[in-house]
Amino acid sequence: MNNSRLQRCAKELGVPCFIEQEADLLYLTGMTLSKGRLLVDGKEPILFVDGRYYEKAKKEAPCSVQLWDEQKKIGEKRIGFDSAFVTYEGYLALKKEFPHVEWIPMPKPLKMLRAIKEPKEIAALKKAADLTWRGYQKVVQKLKEGVSEEELALEFEMFCRKNGASGLSFSPIIAFGENSAYPHHRAGKSQLHQGQIVLVDVGAVVDQYRGDMTRIFYFGKPDPKVVRLEQIVKRAQKKALDYVKPGILLSKLDELVRAEFDKERVKQLYTHSLGHGIGLETHEFPRVKFDGEDRDVVLKPGMVFTIEPGLYQPGVGGVRIEDMILVTEQGHENFFAHA
Amino acid sequence: MNNSRLQRCAKELGVPCFIEQEADLLYLTGMTLSKGRLLVDGKEPILFVDGRYYEKAKKEAPCSVQLWDEQKKIGEKRIGFDSAFVTYEGYLALKKEFPHVEWIPMPKPLKMLRAIKEPKEIAALKKAADLTWRGYQKVVQKLKEGVSEEELALEFEMFCRKNGASGLSFSPIIAFGENSAYPHHRAGKSQLHQGQIVLVDVGAVVDQYRGDMTRIFYFGKPDPKVVRLEQIVKRAQKKALDYVKPGILLSKLDELVRAEFDKERVKQLYTHSLGHGIGLETHEFPRVKFDGEDRDVVLKPGMVFTIEPGLYQPGVGGVRIEDMILVTEQGHENFFAHA
Repeated sequence: MNNSRLQRCAKELGVPCFIEQEADLLYLTGMTLSKGRLLVDGKEPILFVDGRYYEKAKKEAPCSVQLWDEQKKIGEKRIGFDSAFVTYEGYLALKKEFPHVEWIPMPKPLKMLRAIKEPKEIAALKKAADLTWRGYQKVVQKLKEGVSEEELALEFEMFCRKNGASGLSFSPIIAFGENSAYPHHRAGKSQLHQGQIVLVDVGAVVDQYRGDMTRIFYFGKPDPKVVRLEQIVKRAQKKALDYVKPGILLSKLDELVRAEFDKERVKQLYTHSLGHGIGLETHEFPRVKFDGEDRDVVLKPGMVFTIEPGLYQPGVGGVRIEDMILVTEQGHENFFAHA
Repeated sequence: MNNSRLQRCAKELGVPCFIEQEADLLYLTGMTLSKGRLLVDGKEPILFVDGRYYEKAKKEAPCSVQLWDEQKKIGEKRIGFDSAFVTYEGYLALKKEFPHVEWIPMPKPLKMLRAIKEPKEIAALKKAADLTWRGYQKVVQKLKEGVSEEELALEFEMFCRKNGASGLSFSPIIAFGENSAYPHHRAGKSQLHQGQIVLVDVGAVVDQYRGDMTRIFYFGKPDPKVVRLEQIVKRAQKKALDYVKPGILLSKLDELVRAEFDKERVKQLYTHSLGHGIGLETHEFPRVKFDGEDRDVVLKPGMVFTIEPGLYQPGVGGVRIEDMILVTEQGHENFFAHA
């Protein structure tokens, strides 16, 4: 399978290209390498690794493997590099090491390939989503007066790890009360009290693929101001979800959400993008934003991304609802439809 | 305190500089920001963040805070950027956004500042080391016929999390038998059997600072070939440790280890560098290697790095012993001296 990916990749890129980003290497070789360089080309792809990975790579990689120093034998005259991954210093080093090569900047060269998920990848994402949902339910069970955000984050992690997760997609965001108004709040020492909103944004990693979900929960009597935000967020999210199908423009989804927020005069409380592609990485191509760099992407079957509108009122609280959405031939599937 | 760091940083850099790397931002602002840009200069440092972090940053940052878009008002003519962090695309974007600025590549601009740990940082590193050691002891207690590497990794993580770790420095490396011959093996499904070596390379994060330690353990009767490797590694490590004091050249430590391995005709089984600086990141400046980019660094009091020689014999096993070392006025302190 990985070898057919390598072939498709070489065909799609058109020119020989260095692949070095960790998730790209995992996608093409099946290996987790903290340092590796894969020369993708139509003739013979070669994975270059240092001594630490050499024995393992020779056993596991779906292509020939050479030690790092063997790169000096590369004969190509034009090579692409991932200019969205390689640092400016890395670029200077490439020019110095290979003075006769013409370097072609190719930002995120695998992004389109990785954006269309294969059935096996979709199955893994569903498993990750399912475990994420079960972990969330565990968190809800543990809500009680005085419990801390940190304690709940640990409960979530332990539950997921014991039930097949290799890790978490990110450090859990669990926010009580006003903390929920900070979209990137981390679970901290705050304790839960009656009348607070609980925002839970969590994800488990299963079979290398990542889950990501956000829900809110009212502990005791809800604040009407927060309830209003929730109603608007849910309505806006539904507008976007209903529109997801092959052929539509990505930017349109965020525009629909923004129009809804505008109508309710809360647009200024929406401070981030609508969502992001998800797969081997928690945040991957495409970014779902009306004016983002991926705004012109046209939806295709097999794409999986989050839809997560949010409204944040400092001093009051924030509401975000996040689902993982698969674009299907007919329209879409929400991995958290049951939730 | 963070503000005094900002002042020292501006003084040391000499020119205004954009700081964007996450650990650098944490070091200078005390905040964990997945996206942020700090303009360090002698007059008035400014932290630029997007809407997600704005409210939080205004409360917590030790300098003035502005929204991302306000950068267009920056009047500087020459600005440094972290060319070891900013990607090639990022560099092109800077040139496009600020066409009148002369951009000065400054790879890892904070590396010297961060390499010399303050007393508070040393205290946090000691706490991280101590918890790492206790977690390792927990793993040793759980060794039994048939237990899997993964189960032990989870034991380690749970123990650390329950005892004050905010996370792990990296995914635990726990390797049974021949797996230990792969320096970057991850804990997997392999089960423990009599006569196997167990290699445990783990670290806990406490108060933002990171622990990192490697030990081996024999489960049952040891393989004499592995015991020989262990004796050589220990002798080589002692040679390096005994030499650590202010004023010596970093490369010398790795040279001592290599000389010892050479004498024993096992140099080809040593496939990585001797160690790495450790602090807010698991791997930070300086890299301890005889021919590495930091080979000319002169040791100074307050530096903390690992010393971790290893020998790896495919099909037999590997041995690595790793300690965390603080350079003191008199010589050094090993955080795992008791271990």
